[in-house]
Amino acid sequence: MSTRPFSPINQEHADALAALVGPRNVSTEAEKLAAYSRDEVPASAWDRPYTAEALVFAESTEDVSKILAYANAHRIAVTPRGAGTGLSGGAVPACGGIVLSLEKMNRILELDEENLTVTVEPGVVTSEITKLASAHKLLYAGDPCSGDASFIGGNVAENAGGNKVIKYGATGAQVLGLEAVLADGRIVRFGGKRRKDVTGYDFVHLLVGSEGTLAVVTEVTLKLLPMPEHNVDLLAAFSDLESAIAFVPKIVTQTRILPASIEYIDHQALSLAQRYLNCTLPAGDAGAHLIIQLEGNDPEILADEYERVGDLCLEHGAFEVFVADNRTAKDKLWKARKSIPEAISTFYSHYLKEDVVVPVSKIPALLEAVKDLCTRYPVTFVSFGHAGDGNIHLSLLSGEDTTDWKTPLHEAQEALYRIVESMGGTLSGEHGIGLKRRDLVGFFLDETQQELIRRVKTAFDPNGILNPFKIVPWTTSS
Amino acid sequence: MSTRPFSPINQEHADALAALVGPRNVSTEAEKLAAYSRDEVPASAWDRPYTAEALVFAESTEDVSKILAYANAHRIAVTPRGAGTGLSGGAVPACGGIVLSLEKMNRILELDEENLTVTVEPGVVTSEITKLASAHKLLYAGDPCSGDASFIGGNVAENAGGNKVIKYGATGAQVLGLEAVLADGRIVRFGGKRRKDVTGYDFVHLLVGSEGTLAVVTEVTLKLLPMPEHNVDLLAAFSDLESAIAFVPKIVTQTRILPASIEYIDHQALSLAQRYLNCTLPAGDAGAHLIIQLEGNDPEILADEYERVGDLCLEHGAFEVFVADNRTAKDKLWKARKSIPEAISTFYSHYLKEDVVVPVSKIPALLEAVKDLCTRYPVTFVSFGHAGDGNIHLSLLSGEDTTDWKTPLHEAQEALYRIVESMGGTLSGEHGIGLKRRDLVGFFLDETQQELIRRVKTAFDPNGILNPFKIVPWTTSS
Repeated sequence: MSTRPFSPINQEHADALAALVGPRNVSTEAEKLAAYSRDEVPASAWDRPYTAEALVFAESTEDVSKILAYANAHRIAVTPRGAGTGLSGGAVPACGGIVLSLEKMNRILELDEENLTVTVEPGVVTSEITKLASAHKLLYAGDPCSGDASFIGGNVAENAGGNKVIKYGATGAQVLGLEAVLADGRIVRFGGKRRKDVTGYDFVHLLVGSEGTLAVVTEVTLKLLPMPEHNVDLLAAFSDLESAIAFVPKIVTQTRILPASIEYIDHQALSLAQRYLNCTLPAGDAGAHLIIQLEGNDPEILADEYERVGDLCLEHGAFEVFVADNRTAKDKLWKARKSIPEAISTFYSHYLKEDVVVPVSKIPALLEAVKDLCTRYPVTFVSFGHAGDGNIHLSLLSGEDTTDWKTPLHEAQEALYRIVESMGGTLSGEHGIGLKRRDLVGFFLDETQQELIRRVKTAFDPNGILNPFKIVPWTTSS
Repeated sequence: MSTRPFSPINQEHADALAALVGPRNVSTEAEKLAAYSRDEVPASAWDRPYTAEALVFAESTEDVSKILAYANAHRIAVTPRGAGTGLSGGAVPACGGIVLSLEKMNRILELDEENLTVTVEPGVVTSEITKLASAHKLLYAGDPCSGDASFIGGNVAENAGGNKVIKYGATGAQVLGLEAVLADGRIVRFGGKRRKDVTGYDFVHLLVGSEGTLAVVTEVTLKLLPMPEHNVDLLAAFSDLESAIAFVPKIVTQTRILPASIEYIDHQALSLAQRYLNCTLPAGDAGAHLIIQLEGNDPEILADEYERVGDLCLEHGAFEVFVADNRTAKDKLWKARKSIPEAISTFYSHYLKEDVVVPVSKIPALLEAVKDLCTRYPVTFVSFGHAGDGNIHLSLLSGEDTTDWKTPLHEAQEALYRIVESMGGTLSGEHGIGLKRRDLVGFFLDETQQELIRRVKTAFDPNGILNPFKIVPWTTSS
C-alpha cells in the first residue's frame, strides 16, 4: 500500500490543467489544498496526512471529461469532492493527485411537473432540491441529516440515507438517471426520466454508493412524489432505552401504519444535544426518546393515526407522548436530533462514530451486547439513530485523560463488528466505507466479495485513477 | 458469433453431472431438452433452433455450486431457467450446453413478521409469496402480470415490473438481499434483512435484471409492507385513446393521489381480450379504457379519493367511470387486462410484441408517432400497458396473408425504436433484452455502454459461461 503508483503533479501538469479548464479553476496553493483535502472525519483518524497536489474545479460535464482524460493519460489520481460533509474520508485524496471539486456545478436544471422529476448538477445543496420541490407541492424524499450542507452528488456517491428511509428508501431509491464521466473522459448516461428500465445492467444503482470510485457523476435525475399535505411528529419518552427499542417493530406490525421516520435518542445523546443547543426538550431526563413522524393528506385521519400510535407507545412503556404539530415544535425536535453528531465532536475528543446496521428486530440485542462490551473494555457509548430501519449511530467513547485512547476504542470496535456481523448486520448504513473503514471491511465482506469489488472497479476504471485505494484494501499490483 | 467457444456435452460430462447432483436431476432426453429450451417467445422469432444438450435440476445452493464449478472448469455454457414465462429468450440456451432449472428450489424459507421480510428460493411461484404475505396482512408489492406462473427467480433476473410500479417500484425495489452462486461455483451473499447498506458496491441491484448473466440467484430476501386494508379499481371509458392517455399524468399532479396502478387498454386490445375470454366489459366499445387502482386503510377516505379521481376522469373526456369495489368485478377487469398478450398470440401469427418505455408525458406523442408509422409501413398496432409508469406494450402486427411478413415488421420496429430513443425512452421496461432484443440494443446503448456491460460481465464470469451471448452483441473473442 505504501508504493505509490500514480504520477505526482508537476508544473507541466498544473499548466496543462489550467489550459484545459481555465486558470481560475486550478489551484496549487497550500492553504486551499489543505482545506479541500479533508471531510468531516477528524484528522486524528488518519495515520498520516493526506493532501491533494492540485485542486481543480469543474464548471461543466465537458470540464470533468477533459480533466479525467488528462489524468487518465498521465496516471494522475483524481478524488471527486462534493461539499466535504462526508463521514468516511470518501473525499480525502488517499493518493494525492487532483481533488476535483464539483461545487461550481450547482444548477438545478429542470423540475418536470408532468413526469415528476427534477434534474440537477452534482453541486446542488440537497435542501435546495427539497425546497424547490416543496414550492411545487412535491416531495423529494431523500432526507439526509446533513441536507442543509451536503451536495446531492455526495448523497449519490454515498447513497445517503437519513430519516425517511423506512418509508421512501435511501438516496438511491430516488435516482432515476445519471450522467457520469468515466475515468478515461467518456461521457455516459444511465437511466433517465423513466420509471422502469431493464435495457442492460442497472448501472444507475451500481454508481449510487460507489463513492466516486467508478465514475464522476455530473447530472442526476431524481424522482419526486406528491407532497403529503400534513405531518406530525410524536416524541415518546421512555424510562429506559430497552423498552423504547423493543417497541420499535411493533409500531408497524401492530398499527399497520408506515411512519415516514422512527428515530431514537438515548439518554446521553439527548443530554449532549440539550447541552450543545442550550435548550431543554420535553421529558429531557427520559431514558430514551422515540421520534415518530406520520404523514397524510387528511388531518382527521392523521389525528386518528397519531392517537393510535401514541396509545401504543403508552401501552409499551412510554411514560409520556408529546405531539409536535406546529413548525416551531417540530423544528426544535429535529434540530436536537440532528445536532447530536456535532455535540459529540464538541464534548469529546476520543471517539469512534459507528454507522452499523442490523435487522430491526436485533437492535435490542445489539444494544445489550454493546452495554456488555463496555464492561469488558474501558469505553462508554452514546447511541441514537434510525431505529425504524436498523441503522444505529453508535459512538464509542474513550476517557479524555487516557494517553493511549486509540487501542481500547479499536478493540471495542472490533468486538462490536463481530457482534453486528453475527446478527446479520453490516458495517455502514449510510456513511460509506471510504478510507476510514477500508481496512475493516474484512469483518463483513469476505475475500470473494472484495475481489468482485476490485474487478468491477477495474472494469470501469482500468488504471484505477478514480478515488483510489478506497472501500476495500488494495495492493498496488491490483 | 457463429464460432462456438464452449465445450459440447459428451457422455462423460453427463455422467459427471449425474454423479454430482444425482441421476434424477440430469436428463439428455430430446423431448425434455426441447421443452426446457424455450420460453414464451415463439420459435418463429429465432433464426435457428436453440437446444440445450443437458437439462440439470438443482435441489439446493450446493447443487448449483457443484454444477457451475464443473461447467466452468470444462467451459460448458449454462443457461439458468425459472418457469420459462420470459418474453425475451432470456432462458433460451443460445449456446447449447446446460439448461439449469431452478424449479425444484421452490421453498418459502421464512416469513419474518418483525423485520417485514420473506426469504424464498428462486423456484417459488410469485403469487405464492403474495398469498402468504396476504395471509399475514402483509403486502409483497412485486406484481408482474405473469405472477400466477412466473418464479420469483425469473422476476429477479428480469427485474419484472407489472402493475404497481408507479407506487412501489419494480421487483428490484422489493429485493433486500440475495444469495447467489458465481460462475466458478463460489457462493456469495449480497445485502440481507437490512433496509440500508453501503458496505461495498450495490451488487444486489446489479444482479437484479442481469438476466442470469452474472451469477445464479439461489435465495432472495424480499421486503414486505403493511397491507392496505381496502382497494378499489376504477374503469374509465374514453371515446378515444388520445384523451385517455393525455389524461394520465393529470391523475397524480392534479389530485396529489398516488394510485397503485394506472393501466390502459386501447380499443383493439379490449376487443381482443373480450373475444378471447368470451366476455363483455362495461363500455366494451370505448376507444380506450384506463384502469386506476386506489388503495387505503380507510373506506371513507378511499371513497372520497375515487370520487375525486372519477370526477377528474369525467372532466377530461371519460364518458363513463365504473367502480369495481368487489372481488368479482375486480377479477373480471384484471383478467381482461392480463389476457391481452395471450389474446394477441391467439388471434395473430405475425407480430412483434414491444415493451418500450418513455417518460409518462411522452406517451401521447409516442402513440401519435406510431399511428403515423402505420401509414408508412404495412403494419397495424395494438397497445396497452402501464400508462402510469410509461411502459407501453405495443404489438406491431403484420397482415396474416403476407409471405414476407417479417421485413415490414422489422422496418417498423426500427422506426419505432428511433422514435422512442428520441423521446428519452428505452427498449425494454420489464421483459428484458435476452436473446430476442440483443442485436437491437445499439438503438439505445452506445458502444461505451455496451462495453461496460461486457466488462462487468467478464468481471463476474471470466469464462463467460453464464447465459452466454445475451443482452449485448458478443464476438467470441470478447
